Amino acid sequence: MKNFVSFLDHDPNVIRAIVEQALGIKNGSIVPQNLQGKTLGMLFFNPSLRTRVSFELAMKRFGGDAIALAAGSDTWSLEFGERALMNGTTVEHVKDASKVLSRYVDGIAIRSFGALKSLEEDLKESVLRGFEQFADVPVISMESACEHPAQALADMMTMRERHGNERVKFVLSWAPHIKALPMAVPHSALLAAAHLGHDIVLAHPEGFDLAPQFVNHAREVATQFGGTLSETNNQSDALMDATIVYAKNWAPAAAYGDPAKLDSMLGAHTDWLMTGDKIKNAKTLLHCLPVRRNLEVSDNALDSPQSAIYDEAENRLWAQASLLDTIFNP
Amino acid sequence: MKNFVSFLDHDPNVIRAIVEQALGIKNGSIVPQNLQGKTLGMLFFNPSLRTRVSFELAMKRFGGDAIALAAGSDTWSLEFGERALMNGTTVEHVKDASKVLSRYVDGIAIRSFGALKSLEEDLKESVLRGFEQFADVPVISMESACEHPAQALADMMTMRERHGNERVKFVLSWAPHIKALPMAVPHSALLAAAHLGHDIVLAHPEGFDLAPQFVNHAREVATQFGGTLSETNNQSDALMDATIVYAKNWAPAAAYGDPAKLDSMLGAHTDWLMTGDKIKNAKTLLHCLPVRRNLEVSDNALDSPQSAIYDEAENRLWAQASLLDTIFNP
Amino acid sequence: MKNFVSFLDHDPNVIRAIVEQALGIKNGSIVPQNLQGKTLGMLFFNPSLRTRVSFELAMKRFGGDAIALAAGSDTWSLEFGERALMNGTTVEHVKDASKVLSRYVDGIAIRSFGALKSLEEDLKESVLRGFEQFADVPVISMESACEHPAQALADMMTMRERHGNERVKFVLSWAPHIKALPMAVPHSALLAAAHLGHDIVLAHPEGFDLAPQFVNHAREVATQFGGTLSETNNQSDALMDATIVYAKNWAPAAAYGDPAKLDSMLGAHTDWLMTGDKIKNAKTLLHCLPVRRNLEVSDNALDSPQSAIYDEAENRLWAQASLLDTIFNP
Repeated sequence: MKNFVSFLDHDPNVIRAIVEQALGIKNGSIVPQNLQGKTLGMLFFNPSLRTRVSFELAMKRFGGDAIALAAGSDTWSLEFGERALMNGTTVEHVKDASKVLSRYVDGIAIRSFGALKSLEEDLKESVLRGFEQFADVPVISMESACEHPAQALADMMTMRERHGNERVKFVLSWAPHIKALPMAVPHSALLAAAHLGHDIVLAHPEGFDLAPQFVNHAREVATQFGGTLSETNNQSDALMDATIVYAKNWAPAAAYGDPAKLDSMLGAHTDWLMTGDKIKNAKTLLHCLPVRRNLEVSDNALDSPQSAIYDEAENRLWAQASLLDTIFNP
Repeated sequence: MKNFVSFLDHDPNVIRAIVEQALGIKNGSIVPQNLQGKTLGMLFFNPSLRTRVSFELAMKRFGGDAIALAAGSDTWSLEFGERALMNGTTVEHVKDASKVLSRYVDGIAIRSFGALKSLEEDLKESVLRGFEQFADVPVISMESACEHPAQALADMMTMRERHGNERVKFVLSWAPHIKALPMAVPHSALLAAAHLGHDIVLAHPEGFDLAPQFVNHAREVATQFGGTLSETNNQSDALMDATIVYAKNWAPAAAYGDPAKLDSMLGAHTDWLMTGDKIKNAKTLLHCLPVRRNLEVSDNALDSPQSAIYDEAENRLWAQASLLDTIFNP
Repeated sequence: MKNFVSFLDHDPNVIRAIVEQALGIKNGSIVPQNLQGKTLGMLFFNPSLRTRVSFELAMKRFGGDAIALAAGSDTWSLEFGERALMNGTTVEHVKDASKVLSRYVDGIAIRSFGALKSLEEDLKESVLRGFEQFADVPVISMESACEHPAQALADMMTMRERHGNERVKFVLSWAPHIKALPMAVPHSALLAAAHLGHDIVLAHPEGFDLAPQFVNHAREVATQFGGTLSETNNQSDALMDATIVYAKNWAPAAAYGDPAKLDSMLGAHTDWLMTGDKIKNAKTLLHCLPVRRNLEVSDNALDSPQSAIYDEAENRLWAQASLLDTIFNP
C-alpha cells in the first residue's frame, strides 16, 4: 500500500489485515516498527482536533514524529488545474506543494472537506488526488470530500472488538441535523461494515441517497465476505433486529448550495433522532463524533451500555498506527 | 492532587510543596521523574505564547511531550448544558470532548478566559469545571475566567527566591489600562502572597473590588501562615513600607459589558500608574506580563533593579514542571 | 556568528563556510552536533509552510526541537518604540517579548514581512532588529521585510551543487505578478550569487529598482570573489549566455501603498514571463517557491531539466541545519 486515499483503491483483504494488526497493537502483542524515525507532514485544509491528536500520537508513540500544518485556504490556496495560468487567487500549484513536501517528510496526511456545492465536483477529490498524482511519498487521507477511511478502520476495529468475527445486522441510520454535512463518514461507515461482511441496511429518508459508487462498492465487498446490503426509507423496519447501529447525518446532494431547500429537507425528518428506545435491542451504537446530542442522537442512546463511541474514538489511534506501519513498510 | 483548576480546591501546604520542589528543579537538585513518556494535551480557547511555550517546554525537558490545540470558539464551540438539545451553535458536548481526549493524552491543560459579561457567570468556570467533571485524566488550568493558578505558582517561587521565608508587606496595586481585563491574575496574585503568609494590602480605586470568595480565601490562608490581608482605596498609603509590589490592571465587574462605563471608570484613575518613584523603597516589583509600558507600569519601574518580571516569566517553566510532576505522581 | 538577520552583518567567508558545511551535512560526511538538546522558538508574524517545516525538521533531525508560534498581529502586536506610552493597539514591548523568550528557548527564529507602505520603513527591519537588540539568545531570520537570508543559503548551496566552484553568468530576472510582493527574496538572491563570485546581471523593467544598499553590497562582495554586477532593463540582453537564471517578482517601491499605480506598473510587463524558450541555453533555473505558474514562470521552464526548484527547496533543510549548527557552536 503506497497511498491511503480511498477504500476503493485497495484489496479488501489488505484493509482487513490493517485492522487485525491494529487489534494486536492495542493489546500490546504487536509493536509496529516502521514508524521509527519517520516524520508525517499533516496538512489541514479544515480544522481538526480528534484526527490531529490521534495521528500525531500514533506517529510519536512508535518512534516517529509529526508536523501539523494549518493550510487555511486564505493562506495557501492551491491550484489544481493542469497548465493553469495562475493569475487568480491560487498561490501554489499542487504539483509544487507535493514535490516540495516530499523532500521534507516521509508521508503527507491531508484533510480536505468537500465544498458541498456539487456532489459531482466533490467526488473528484481534487485535493487528495492532486497530491497523490505528484507526491513522491505516501499520501494519506485524514478525511476528504467523500470518504473518511481512517475513521472506517477505527469503526471496523471497534466492531471486531465487540462482535468478533460474527456476521450481524448493521444499520447505518440517517440522523437529523441543522447544518449541511458531507457524505464522507456515511460512505466510510458503509464500507467498514462491508469489509467485515455484515448484513448492511442503509436507512435514510427519501431523497437522501448516498453516492452510488460507494453503495455499490460496499455491496460488492459485503457480498465477497458473505454479507448483504439493502436500502430503505423506513427507519423502524431497518432497526428491527439490528445488532449494530451507526447513526450519522448527511446532507442531500439535491440541496447542495441551496440553504432553503436544505433547511426544508432536514427539518422534515427530526423523527429520525436516534434514541435509547430505538436501540434497546441492539448491541452496539456507533458514531464518529462530534455528535450533537439530542439533535442527532439522544443522551440515553449515547450514554447507554450499547454506546461504543469512546472506544471508537480511541481506536483511531491504534488503527492509524497500524495503517502507518503498513504504509511505511519498506 | 488530581486536577489543578483552582487554588481554593487544595490544601495550602500541597501548593507550597509544589513551589519548594520547583526551586529544587530550577537549581538542579531535583529531577522530576513523573513526566517521562507522558503527553499533555493543551487546549487553547484563547491565544497564548508565554503559557504555551512554558508548559510545552516543561513537558519536553523532562521526558514528556505536548500537543497544543487551538480550539477557537468558531471551530469547536463546546456545549456545557446538561441534557441540552444541541440545535444551536455548539458542535460538541464537553462530556464527549473530555472523554475522547482522555483516551489520547495523560493530562488536559486548558486556557479559557471569561466572557466579562457577568462576574457571576465567569465565576462558574464552566469550561474548566466541565472538563473536570467528565475527564478521566487530570485537568490543569492554563488560566481560566477567574484564576491563573500556574502564574501564582511562578509568583510564589519568585517571591521565595527574592525574600526567602521572610514575612513581608505585599501590595497588589491596581494599574491603569484601556481595555477590559479579567480578574484571573489579580485573584491568583493575592492567593500567591497568601500562601506565603505575607502581610497583604489589596489597593484599588473605589468600585474595583475583586470577587469576595477569592479575597476571603486569601485572607484565611494568609492568616493560617501568620500573615494578614487588608484592603484600601489609597495607593500611597498602601505602598508605604511595601517590600513587594504587584502591579496589575483589572476591569470593574460593574462595567462588564458596558464599554462607556468601563472607559469612564478606567479613565478616572490614570494616576495609579506604577512608577519607579512609587517603588523606590520596595525590594521587588512583580507583573505577570504582557505589560503595557508607561500605561500600567512605567519604564523606570519595569527596568529597575527591583523588577523581577523576567525571573517571574522564567519561573513559569520550573513551577509548571513541578506541578506536572506532582499531578503525574503515580 | 551570534545572530543571523542580514547577510550584510557577516564576513562573506563565514557565510560561504556555512554553505560548504551544508553540502557535507547533506551528503552525510558531516553530522552537526550543536543542535543537540537545543530548542528553537519560531515566531511567525506571517504565514509559512515551507520555512516552518524545513526549520523544524532541521532542529529535530539533529537532536534538537522547535516550538512554532503563530504571532498574528491581531493576537500579539508588539511595540517597538522606545519609551512608548502603550495606550494604543500594541500589547507587549519587543523588549519584554525578547527577554522572556530568551528565558525559554535557545534561539528565536522570526518571520516578519514588510508592510510595503514605504521602502524606507521596511528597510529599518524593526521587528528583527528589535528582537536582536533585546534578546539574550541568537535571533535568526526566517524572512524579514527586505531579506530572506536562509533562502540565500539554500540558493548558494544549489548553485554549488550544479556548478561547483565555476564562475558563471547569473541573471536575476524580474517576473510578472498580480500582487505586491516584497524585495526580500530578490535582495537575497543577488547576495547569494555575489557570495559565490558570479557575474551577476540584475534585469528588471524601468522603475523596479531594488534597494541600493543591497545592490551595492552584492557588487562589492561579487568583486571580492572575482565576479561582477551589472544592471539592465533589457531582459533578452540579460539572458544572453546566462548559465543560471533566477526568476522572481517584486513590487516597485514607487507603487507601495498605491494599488492603482501598482496594477498599471505590473500590468505593463507581462512579457517578462520566464519561459522555457528564454532559458533554453541556460543550465539552471532557480525560484524560491511558491511560484504562480504561467504568470511568473511558464510550465515548460519550471518542469525543464534546467529547473532546480525542488533541490532548492530541499536545500533549505540542509542549509538551515548548517546555519543552526554554526549559531549554536559553543
